[in-house]
Amino acid sequence: MFVPALADLYVGHPDWQVFALSGALCGGVFMLTAAATSGPPPVFTRRFGFLLVNVLWTVFTIVGAIPFYLSSYDLTLAQAVFESVSGITTTGGTVLVGLDNLPPGLLLWRSLIVWLGGIGILGLGLFILPNLRVGGLSFFKLESSDTTEKPFSRFASFTRAFMAIYLGITLACTLAYAWAGMSLFDAVNHALTTVATGGYSTHDASFGHFDSLAVLWAGTIFMTISSLPFSVMILLAVRKRLNVLRDPQILAFLGYLTVFSVAVGVYHHLTNDVEIGLALTHAFFNISSILSTTGFASEDYTLWGPFAVTAAFMATFIGGCTGSTAGGIKAYRIVVLYGVVRAGLQRLVYPSSVASVRYGRQTVEPDVQRSIFLFLALYMLLWALGLMALGALGYDLMTAMSGSITSLSNVGPGIGSIIGPAGNFSTISDPALYVMSVLMLLGRLEVLTVLVLLMPTFWRY
Amino acid sequence: MFVPALADLYVGHPDWQVFALSGALCGGVFMLTAAATSGPPPVFTRRFGFLLVNVLWTVFTIVGAIPFYLSSYDLTLAQAVFESVSGITTTGGTVLVGLDNLPPGLLLWRSLIVWLGGIGILGLGLFILPNLRVGGLSFFKLESSDTTEKPFSRFASFTRAFMAIYLGITLACTLAYAWAGMSLFDAVNHALTTVATGGYSTHDASFGHFDSLAVLWAGTIFMTISSLPFSVMILLAVRKRLNVLRDPQILAFLGYLTVFSVAVGVYHHLTNDVEIGLALTHAFFNISSILSTTGFASEDYTLWGPFAVTAAFMATFIGGCTGSTAGGIKAYRIVVLYGVVRAGLQRLVYPSSVASVRYGRQTVEPDVQRSIFLFLALYMLLWALGLMALGALGYDLMTAMSGSITSLSNVGPGIGSIIGPAGNFSTISDPALYVMSVLMLLGRLEVLTVLVLLMPTFWRY
Repeated sequence: MFVPALADLYVGHPDWQVFALSGALCGGVFMLTAAATSGPPPVFTRRFGFLLVNVLWTVFTIVGAIPFYLSSYDLTLAQAVFESVSGITTTGGTVLVGLDNLPPGLLLWRSLIVWLGGIGILGLGLFILPNLRVGGLSFFKLESSDTTEKPFSRFASFTRAFMAIYLGITLACTLAYAWAGMSLFDAVNHALTTVATGGYSTHDASFGHFDSLAVLWAGTIFMTISSLPFSVMILLAVRKRLNVLRDPQILAFLGYLTVFSVAVGVYHHLTNDVEIGLALTHAFFNISSILSTTGFASEDYTLWGPFAVTAAFMATFIGGCTGSTAGGIKAYRIVVLYGVVRAGLQRLVYPSSVASVRYGRQTVEPDVQRSIFLFLALYMLLWALGLMALGALGYDLMTAMSGSITSLSNVGPGIGSIIGPAGNFSTISDPALYVMSVLMLLGRLEVLTVLVLLMPTFWRY
Repeated sequence: MFVPALADLYVGHPDWQVFALSGALCGGVFMLTAAATSGPPPVFTRRFGFLLVNVLWTVFTIVGAIPFYLSSYDLTLAQAVFESVSGITTTGGTVLVGLDNLPPGLLLWRSLIVWLGGIGILGLGLFILPNLRVGGLSFFKLESSDTTEKPFSRFASFTRAFMAIYLGITLACTLAYAWAGMSLFDAVNHALTTVATGGYSTHDASFGHFDSLAVLWAGTIFMTISSLPFSVMILLAVRKRLNVLRDPQILAFLGYLTVFSVAVGVYHHLTNDVEIGLALTHAFFNISSILSTTGFASEDYTLWGPFAVTAAFMATFIGGCTGSTAGGIKAYRIVVLYGVVRAGLQRLVYPSSVASVRYGRQTVEPDVQRSIFLFLALYMLLWALGLMALGALGYDLMTAMSGSITSLSNVGPGIGSIIGPAGNFSTISDPALYVMSVLMLLGRLEVLTVLVLLMPTFWRY
């Protein structure tokens, strides 16, 4: 919070006091909490793990919302909470309009919570979720089966490498944006929200503001990189061999990214008589923005025609790779699902055939298959409940349907005149913002992590 | 075909020749086929079973389409095929307009193929699908676990009971409609399409034409009865004890039917200031029409407000009970899914807990759980592919999305101005009609039955 405070102080905006005060307050509370809970850490049970994750994300949300609520921009509590949840879950849907004229502190705060949220997600995926058997893919499992050599002897050195790479990609992205023509402030903000696949922009027109193909391609490349499993990025940095990229989910992700982008680009070219290079540039940018669940937009692709709309809508469900900051159903689950479906159909013809489901050279245990199906069923159920809640709150089917899935998948923009790529969430009512905030948190914490708290047995001793 | 021929001859419409000729032609071909394939029946293997079901339904479709194509009503081939598939799969979406002025033969033919399609579905569900391990629930399994006494010693007596009950319900429905005020011709036609949950009407305004609450309630009751598992109806008729109705999927179906209807009814009452009794009558009629996948409409419920639209859209996915003529995901699968999700979440907290999934007093085998998940994954995938295909053919997201699921679930009407409850499929282009025809057949044959043909191993010796 002291970073935006300094930024506002630099340009002389009174909001610096809000950030300084909030920072002092939160710092104080954290230090008191730390002091009150000093002593040996508790035993890490699964129940403790689930509780910890939920409590942590709730605290992050509250901390993130404080400056929004207190700032000079007049937000309701629901709007402040939504903006904070949207940032921390790296969703990127916003209730703020007139971004171009906002004080730099508030803009930087938005970008920073997205970036920090990204670290939270990656840490969660690397260290905690695999131990809770949620999310499907453990870095350490992947690592140990991949080779016997261990690149990291200790947790600390691994964490250092992790932070160094995350910072390194952010820096590279900043330089690329600055080189492509963004101002330094824009470059930093957009880089922070690109590598976390968040999608907050400093302009209402998002990437449309820059009107530059170089900026769009820089965005496309870094959004795509940020959707790859972070564990693979670490391996790549340590081993310096490109063959770690031959992961089935990476191939699947790049495959459907290309198919969707080329299909939409060619459609855009044919339907709207747009030059093919330009059409493909915009298609790759916007599709990789949706599939990486970033949520930037270069223009209103919902005006390109019905196929572009349906493709964008479907892409909202799919998402990037497991182990990245991308949301959605995710490529790893899709690869396994494909294998399960193949094996299942095979068993229908030959009931005695024992076709095992494979992921690369590994066998996918029935336990993992089950948890993926569990996730899928709950994902669709939550989408349905979300859209019915939004419908009951008065939103049309299109807004309700896309608002529910864009929240659950942590993408950002939806379909329709209100929350579409040319719109925002500023006119959404408070109850609807709370519904979407809950969906964003559920999606971000891989659904199961939150829903497990609803089981009576969870609370029983 | 001779029944509609007689009807047209009675009123002096020249279409009687079309029906008589088609009837003679099909009869001839069938007799020749029967003669050519006389001899002992082939060994019933699983592969033979899958092939048989697919071939049978293809033949039904072609036979059904002939009179539409040759009739005085000017239809393209795609429209004739769509109308036939829609009838035989008991979907009920229609390309015909001006139903009120059509010759009785064509109307009767539409109702008859729906009714015969209903017999086909019930027979498939009772005798064939369980042997192919598709569909999830075998009547004979249910029966044998329920009690040791066998009500039917032989296949023939079972088939007789089956036909007697189907005919009995049709007659009772006809009488109820006639008593409530329909003309005899209308009563017969609507009864034929009600008990098969098809939804073809003899009026463009569907049930809105009659403007009678008694007719609506008669419809609601018989659509609901027709969504109950037919095996339970047989047990009920034979045992004459009501406790067979305490089947988990029946309770679940009646539960969500009531929740949806009351919610939409109260919403309609509050939003549009409609008298509560009237609002509930229309809500129960239209929701049971969607959930039973019949597809009649009493008025355009998409004008009631956004919540009614979202509820109608979600209901299109759900459907009635397994073992009835209703389509959709179905109540049995939903009951099992609920159990699997509960057990899965429990296992996340206590990995060593072995929570078995139960359906009533039976344990659901992992094999059955797997096939239900397989179905669910493919159902959502086909919905997505269908909506993208319709989007590529130029239809807006709403029409594409609801057109895809209303075909796959065999409901009939969708959402939006084109295929909504006040619209029809007459303006839909030929390629889109073929897409929807394929979806209807896939949904009707429980998806897996058809997709298994796409496996290379299916065709290998």
